[in-house]
Amino acid sequence: MERGNTMDERLDAVVWQGDVEGQLLLVDQRRLPQVWERIACPSLASVVEAIASLTVRGAPAIGVAAGYGVVVGMRELRGLEHEAALQQTVEALAGSRPTARNLFEVLERMRSRAEELAGQPRQAVLARLLEHARAIHAEDRARCEAIGEHGWRLVPAGGAVLTHCHAGALATGGIGTALGVLHRARREAVAFAVYAGETRPLLQGARLTAWELQETGADVTLVCDTMTAALMAAGRVDMVLVGADRIARNGDTANKIGTLGLAVMAHHFGIPFYVAAPSSTFDLKLADGRGIPIEERDAAEVRGVRGTPTAPDGVKVWNPAFDVTPARLIRGIITQFGVIESPCEASVAAMLGARQ
Amino acid sequence: MERGNTMDERLDAVVWQGDVEGQLLLVDQRRLPQVWERIACPSLASVVEAIASLTVRGAPAIGVAAGYGVVVGMRELRGLEHEAALQQTVEALAGSRPTARNLFEVLERMRSRAEELAGQPRQAVLARLLEHARAIHAEDRARCEAIGEHGWRLVPAGGAVLTHCHAGALATGGIGTALGVLHRARREAVAFAVYAGETRPLLQGARLTAWELQETGADVTLVCDTMTAALMAAGRVDMVLVGADRIARNGDTANKIGTLGLAVMAHHFGIPFYVAAPSSTFDLKLADGRGIPIEERDAAEVRGVRGTPTAPDGVKVWNPAFDVTPARLIRGIITQFGVIESPCEASVAAMLGARQ
Repeated sequence: MERGNTMDERLDAVVWQGDVEGQLLLVDQRRLPQVWERIACPSLASVVEAIASLTVRGAPAIGVAAGYGVVVGMRELRGLEHEAALQQTVEALAGSRPTARNLFEVLERMRSRAEELAGQPRQAVLARLLEHARAIHAEDRARCEAIGEHGWRLVPAGGAVLTHCHAGALATGGIGTALGVLHRARREAVAFAVYAGETRPLLQGARLTAWELQETGADVTLVCDTMTAALMAAGRVDMVLVGADRIARNGDTANKIGTLGLAVMAHHFGIPFYVAAPSSTFDLKLADGRGIPIEERDAAEVRGVRGTPTAPDGVKVWNPAFDVTPARLIRGIITQFGVIESPCEASVAAMLGARQ
Repeated sequence: MERGNTMDERLDAVVWQGDVEGQLLLVDQRRLPQVWERIACPSLASVVEAIASLTVRGAPAIGVAAGYGVVVGMRELRGLEHEAALQQTVEALAGSRPTARNLFEVLERMRSRAEELAGQPRQAVLARLLEHARAIHAEDRARCEAIGEHGWRLVPAGGAVLTHCHAGALATGGIGTALGVLHRARREAVAFAVYAGETRPLLQGARLTAWELQETGADVTLVCDTMTAALMAAGRVDMVLVGADRIARNGDTANKIGTLGLAVMAHHFGIPFYVAAPSSTFDLKLADGRGIPIEERDAAEVRGVRGTPTAPDGVKVWNPAFDVTPARLIRGIITQFGVIESPCEASVAAMLGARQ
């Protein structure tokens, strides 16, 4: 079995087992935390369905799964001419999550590799494509490891870290970003506690972060999002560490709704606030956070919890998926190249300029 | 029917209908917001059960219900000698919510009135006790009205108010405290929007505040607790207004968990933060908020929502019911005597000193 660098193989969200005739296995994240189960994706349709239905989630993990998905598709469509099979495979996968950046990037890379292989025997093409998908997976794993390597010394030994939403192994091809830093710190025998905010409305903190940390034996305590200020006021938080969805070139950071509040509170209580994210999260075309579009989601997410209604039917709702934390509230952004301290246009450019 | 001053009788949490042979009716708050229903409490046991099971909740509303509960008990125990009936009635009611201050205060007042009436015919005793319970109810109603009177001009016309938890009519014998100010402002034809934070873990904001405001036709929008900073950053909040559970003599205020975070954010974004509470909420023996004990509640409240699990079984949880907002983050405390601006020991004493 293709193993990640995580301390527990149950955290490997995406696994390719065997050779080209082997299978793609995904942890079914819809059933967590109550049930851990891997499901096999033997057909192109099943890979598409797994991405669309959030069986696999997190932009990097989706990208890795899509890479293997191309192998599954090309194998299934052996009967078709190479170009047609490739076209059909890539189109099907691209339609699974229409706004996922990593997904398109990986599909582009797989398509371009496949095009180079046109004319070779199908079995050889499949073997080369599987190698390529594995390389993409390995890159993501290495990126997570590098973020962990640069970040783990920031974790307060004997202290506590508060995190929000889920930026962990389950969302990537490796050990995760924010949680990757924590996993790595534990590997380095740093002792610390973690508080996971549950992260309404979709409860990724309660469902995934609490599970992932508990699974690795970390000292994790779940709190509601209302409890984080009291935690800080009590002196029980020494670092706030979160992931990111998109970062402007001045360091303004869009992340799961609720992040901004934590940054404001951390600032008020003098607690360092860090973001962990790969360089691909930066959108250097954006001058600052004002340019980041904020998705508003279905009111039903706020009116209830996992199907149980909690509010009056039809009550008006505001449900933004992300908020933007201004760079001045961020102590540092941990990337695979190093930590951008006091992020601003100059420090971001200094770290990423030559590399993007 | 005994009518409150609310704009909608469905908000009258506690109603005594008729004379001494009449009945105590309570809005069943466990079934809100999906179902509005009043239930009758014909027996002492049914009143005790209604308080214990949170059919009626909110310290003032519990006190008012307990006053009428003494009438129900003395009527039911007509066959017993006066002293024995009184003893049994008060003991049963006092055991319903062992930490409720208002409950004990009201029971003491009812007992003392009953003792004055010893020796009178039972029917006359019942009539006098019902008068007394009605007077206690009227006092609470008047207190809410006075808070509304002092507070309504602070409500930003054309702007928006963010509130947390539930400090409304359903929790009192009148129009409520924080929501009372809003109800009154609407009566004065001030146009404004309200954002209700859902208030995990027990979701009083989603279940009760959203319902109560929607019921009165107010412009209410429900948000998750994670969304409040983004609301403020977007310039969509002009005032934060909450209730209080206990206030120290320097103005430090204990209120539902999550309040402190809102106060910190409001301070950061330059938004005025107000508390509305009757003078009975002040505990002048306490020098500051450090003396306020914080109840920690059952982990199950955080591990799930209304019976639906949302986190790994057995995950460690921290579940404090309240947090303490330091006085320096509070612009003013709206009491029935007036608004304590920039609360501190001096300004609190100036408003309450002579009156307590």
